[in-house]
Amino acid sequence: MGKELYYEDFEAGQQFTSDRAYVIDRESSIAFSKEYDPQAQHIDEAGAAESAFGQLVVSGWQTAAATMRLNTETELFNVKGGLIGIGIESLQWPRPTLPGDQLRIVATILGKRPSNSRPDKGLIKYRVETFNQRNELAMSMVITVIVPRRHPAQ
Amino acid sequence: MGKELYYEDFEAGQQFTSDRAYVIDRESSIAFSKEYDPQAQHIDEAGAAESAFGQLVVSGWQTAAATMRLNTETELFNVKGGLIGIGIESLQWPRPTLPGDQLRIVATILGKRPSNSRPDKGLIKYRVETFNQRNELAMSMVITVIVPRRHPAQ
Repeated sequence: MGKELYYEDFEAGQQFTSDRAYVIDRESSIAFSKEYDPQAQHIDEAGAAESAFGQLVVSGWQTAAATMRLNTETELFNVKGGLIGIGIESLQWPRPTLPGDQLRIVATILGKRPSNSRPDKGLIKYRVETFNQRNELAMSMVITVIVPRRHPAQ
Repeated sequence: MGKELYYEDFEAGQQFTSDRAYVIDRESSIAFSKEYDPQAQHIDEAGAAESAFGQLVVSGWQTAAATMRLNTETELFNVKGGLIGIGIESLQWPRPTLPGDQLRIVATILGKRPSNSRPDKGLIKYRVETFNQRNELAMSMVITVIVPRRHPAQ
């Protein structure tokens, strides 16, 4: 972990990457999906074989959750007080995550602007890309978060 | 559960609602966040009290996962072979979910179009709104899914 970050420290083009891979194993995948996404392609070997995927695949929402975990481990989360997500403007799953895949992320700052209503806050927009061990894109999203300013607007 | 649904059965304005509430209790909230979103506002009572939220709040990604669960329980998921999500064009969390909140959803069909590449498929776009027991909007998203056509294009 490095120094605390504020709005002023971000610039478009900066990248933050995860230091490790996150693996969703078969047991974890099935447990998550039984609770949150109980569809055949996620929870039932035979049903998955007959599905459009032809095999068990991880719920896209668990890929998203794993992405969040890796995101929190990057230096991006050295922001004082943390990041507060306010909205996602796009999220795609170009391909399913398979149980056992090793996920990593790359977060790229796209832009920033001061908050209109809060002189002590700013908004940062960034893209998060989640790759598997074959360097295939498993998920991509663009999210906007609120962060504190080191020097509030006058 | 009713009859199997196909692309042809959907029209803009149709609504599908969950039959029950989904509750994320404090234990489940902390367990999910420890794994996927280990920030103070989600996992640590004292840290949460000092956060922007002033109390423990549920991870937005668990609200999203609970929304998925409720979504799978609606008649929308009577689609033959299931829905395959291809992308979300917006997702907002207007307010946090609190542990113990009773969540329900309303899914509203926004539109549809035939697949350009698959004559046996069509795309359905719909909004999902997640409300708590105070009828406050906790999450809103617009998602596009692929569904089968009863009558493939010639």
